[in-house]
Amino acid sequence: MQTTAQISLSARYGEGAEPKAGPWNAVIELLAQHKSVRAYKTDPLPDGTFETLVAAAQSAATSSNMQTWSVVAVRDPARKAALARLASNQKHIEQCPLFLVFLADVSRQMRMQSAENVTLETLPYLEQFLVAAIDSALAAQNAVIAAESLGLATVYIGALRNHPVEVAKELGLPEGAMATFGLCVGYADPAVTNEVKPRLPQTAIAFEEQYRIADEVAVRRAYDARMAAFASRNETVADSWTRRIVSRMGKVAAMGGRDKLVDALRALGFPLR
Amino acid sequence: MQTTAQISLSARYGEGAEPKAGPWNAVIELLAQHKSVRAYKTDPLPDGTFETLVAAAQSAATSSNMQTWSVVAVRDPARKAALARLASNQKHIEQCPLFLVFLADVSRQMRMQSAENVTLETLPYLEQFLVAAIDSALAAQNAVIAAESLGLATVYIGALRNHPVEVAKELGLPEGAMATFGLCVGYADPAVTNEVKPRLPQTAIAFEEQYRIADEVAVRRAYDARMAAFASRNETVADSWTRRIVSRMGKVAAMGGRDKLVDALRALGFPLR
Repeated sequence: MQTTAQISLSARYGEGAEPKAGPWNAVIELLAQHKSVRAYKTDPLPDGTFETLVAAAQSAATSSNMQTWSVVAVRDPARKAALARLASNQKHIEQCPLFLVFLADVSRQMRMQSAENVTLETLPYLEQFLVAAIDSALAAQNAVIAAESLGLATVYIGALRNHPVEVAKELGLPEGAMATFGLCVGYADPAVTNEVKPRLPQTAIAFEEQYRIADEVAVRRAYDARMAAFASRNETVADSWTRRIVSRMGKVAAMGGRDKLVDALRALGFPLR
Repeated sequence: MQTTAQISLSARYGEGAEPKAGPWNAVIELLAQHKSVRAYKTDPLPDGTFETLVAAAQSAATSSNMQTWSVVAVRDPARKAALARLASNQKHIEQCPLFLVFLADVSRQMRMQSAENVTLETLPYLEQFLVAAIDSALAAQNAVIAAESLGLATVYIGALRNHPVEVAKELGLPEGAMATFGLCVGYADPAVTNEVKPRLPQTAIAFEEQYRIADEVAVRRAYDARMAAFASRNETVADSWTRRIVSRMGKVAAMGGRDKLVDALRALGFPLR
């Protein structure tokens, strides 16, 4: 009989592509079962859900306790519609009862400069933006785990970076804050169900001691076949991974405006020195 | 009698600064109890632990399934010592039995270009580096949660960005891969215990509908007092948060080389266009 771990690893990697089984428990099972959900019921969330998600998010590590991130909860239908328009018209932004916008946010430290009459020389550097962006991601992932533990579904919205200046205006962001991504939170529409999406095998992603590339094309071809089969069961077009990557990364025109991210960040108060 | 949620929220925010209590469960309790640990026993980990942490990490969302991240497991004492030297001599890198280095990694896609005779025009853009860095953070945070669920402790090592080119050489990284941070994994040394670190109150971090700054200086003063009290119980100097921020962010010289991150990233194959 298969264990829970074996069943979950087969779903995540495909039959025959599973890694060696290691320690396992209910929390790891929750993580392994993650699916991004793009169809929501409009049912409201239990009272205090946002506060719990924020407590989980704030419990994640943050570089040197700088806490250079923030989050805005959007529930107003008009504002969700405005944000959806700025993010490639993704309808689930309007459907979900709670749309979180995570921010890379050094504005608290910018305001601290004038309040305390100090200069924080590191603020203009790319490093400080990267710390803020990573902090926002660690926080958001904790919120995702907390949400899923409560039976809620989520999906990250990277397209919120298509028009960062307009998003900042919609949310009234101060100088030094930028929306790194959105996160839909709600109850999954049971009429729209997907399988767990297979990932590249561990040999392609995880290395011992040094980076070692082995049989990369053959490994990718095998994964292409698994992804095409997954897509034929769950999506409209049975594309391989390679074909999806070429279509997603091939043309600057497919970036939805994100080719201008450097200019947008500078306009929002991140010189990226 | 206080509930578990109330006890955990008091520890995370300080008495009187707790948010409204919302839904709660054992997974959220695990998240809320997080502490970064900087002292490890040298005991080895159970067989298959790395594979389980990677399965958890790969189960996190990844932008458009691009999977632009990787991880290198370092256990060799000489290599851990070399990485510790490159990261401000943090002794816990040498102590912990498993040191993970998370990478922003578009090198698979770079190699795909020649193998498939295609051009991926988006590769040179800052956006693509940011996607890779965020992907590496989402993955790492899932690994952290999995580790903590197994009774292991962790700490992120941002100082691995002090010398990104030298770290890349030590790990044999290909063009298009950069270590975003390290992660110590091991059993906490029980002789060195810390309380949960208090964070800024939710009113300073989390907003409804739009970003609203209210009583910021007073809120910060109250948090400064909580952090100074925490530091006097757990650390050597009873610094306030404001003082720590000024000391961490005040001078470029305190960046440990990270003021040259733009040049380092360009040398590693990220033009940041």
